[in-house]
Amino acid sequence: MRQDRIQNLIDALRVLPGVGPKSAQRLAFTLLQNEREGAQQLADAIDDALTHLRHCEKCYTLTDQALCQVCANPKRNEALLCVVQSPMDQLLIEQTMTYNGLYFVLMGKLNPLDGVGPQDIGMDALLKRAADGVVTEVILATHFTNEGELTAHYLGEQLIQKGLRVTRLAKGVPVGSELEQVDLGTLAQAMTGRRNTNM
Amino acid sequence: MRQDRIQNLIDALRVLPGVGPKSAQRLAFTLLQNEREGAQQLADAIDDALTHLRHCEKCYTLTDQALCQVCANPKRNEALLCVVQSPMDQLLIEQTMTYNGLYFVLMGKLNPLDGVGPQDIGMDALLKRAADGVVTEVILATHFTNEGELTAHYLGEQLIQKGLRVTRLAKGVPVGSELEQVDLGTLAQAMTGRRNTNM
Repeated sequence: MRQDRIQNLIDALRVLPGVGPKSAQRLAFTLLQNEREGAQQLADAIDDALTHLRHCEKCYTLTDQALCQVCANPKRNEALLCVVQSPMDQLLIEQTMTYNGLYFVLMGKLNPLDGVGPQDIGMDALLKRAADGVVTEVILATHFTNEGELTAHYLGEQLIQKGLRVTRLAKGVPVGSELEQVDLGTLAQAMTGRRNTNM
Repeated sequence: MRQDRIQNLIDALRVLPGVGPKSAQRLAFTLLQNEREGAQQLADAIDDALTHLRHCEKCYTLTDQALCQVCANPKRNEALLCVVQSPMDQLLIEQTMTYNGLYFVLMGKLNPLDGVGPQDIGMDALLKRAADGVVTEVILATHFTNEGELTAHYLGEQLIQKGLRVTRLAKGVPVGSELEQVDLGTLAQAMTGRRNTNM
């Protein structure tokens, strides 16, 4: 006989990606038995984030201010605009600490099969932003999947027409990989995109 | 530059077993971008469960009533008492729909190395309950780990002294397994515990 409140929690945990019925059950009992304090913190953090986070007025990432910390930082290079598919991708690039420009966060990627067109992902806002006279280079950092490449290709065409320099993240062998772990398409890209060593 | 509220949520998600920094990040953004409604339901379900769930007065499982649904059900066989290590194990046995008796939920398992003795897991309450004159058989369903076996062994000795029939869940080859997937200890148990077929 299941208890309703426990079952509610088990069902609710299935919102987490990759959590099926069995692991939801295990998570629920772990939270209730061994992690009550952490569970309360989790509930509060979700509530707080949902209540206060909104989109940055300039780059559309998630923030609890009108402008996100990157857009509000006067030390960032306004001539560089990096286009990403999501707030998480923006955070990942920030974590590399290799980029000092600004961002534009698309609302996803083009997906003609699912009827997702340029207007659905904020393309108009991006083209307007990129043509503000300050931006000189747009770095396309959409995913290297079919839809991400399609999005980059489509964006690139529009942006080049506006006279902007358009770049794409480098493709190649991941750091730490053995060659045999890499698919042939990646290896082919790494070969044709080979660079002079600085040694 | 990380946003504090997002980072709070990422940190809080790490309370979930098996969730490291990277998957916490992915979970956080999934909740905030694609699953806002489900995220709110999750926060509410955690709050609700933490607020209302307590231990059943009779068997100590988690419930939002004084007595859990199993203990409150007059159709259950009061002569059978199944001893489990946790409320989750109790739910798992209920889900098998093979058992019509009552339960006693221990608060964990004996672990002498960590200083967890009989009094820490509710052994006194169990011995009192088992000696109520109604219970005739105690089924030990603690885990088949070293600590679970130790707990079962210790409990069994005490309960047999009180004149009770004490049984243990059967050990053997899991349903659906090939023999080569099973360790030798399990196979040995399955052989010595072999039973007549009903075919």
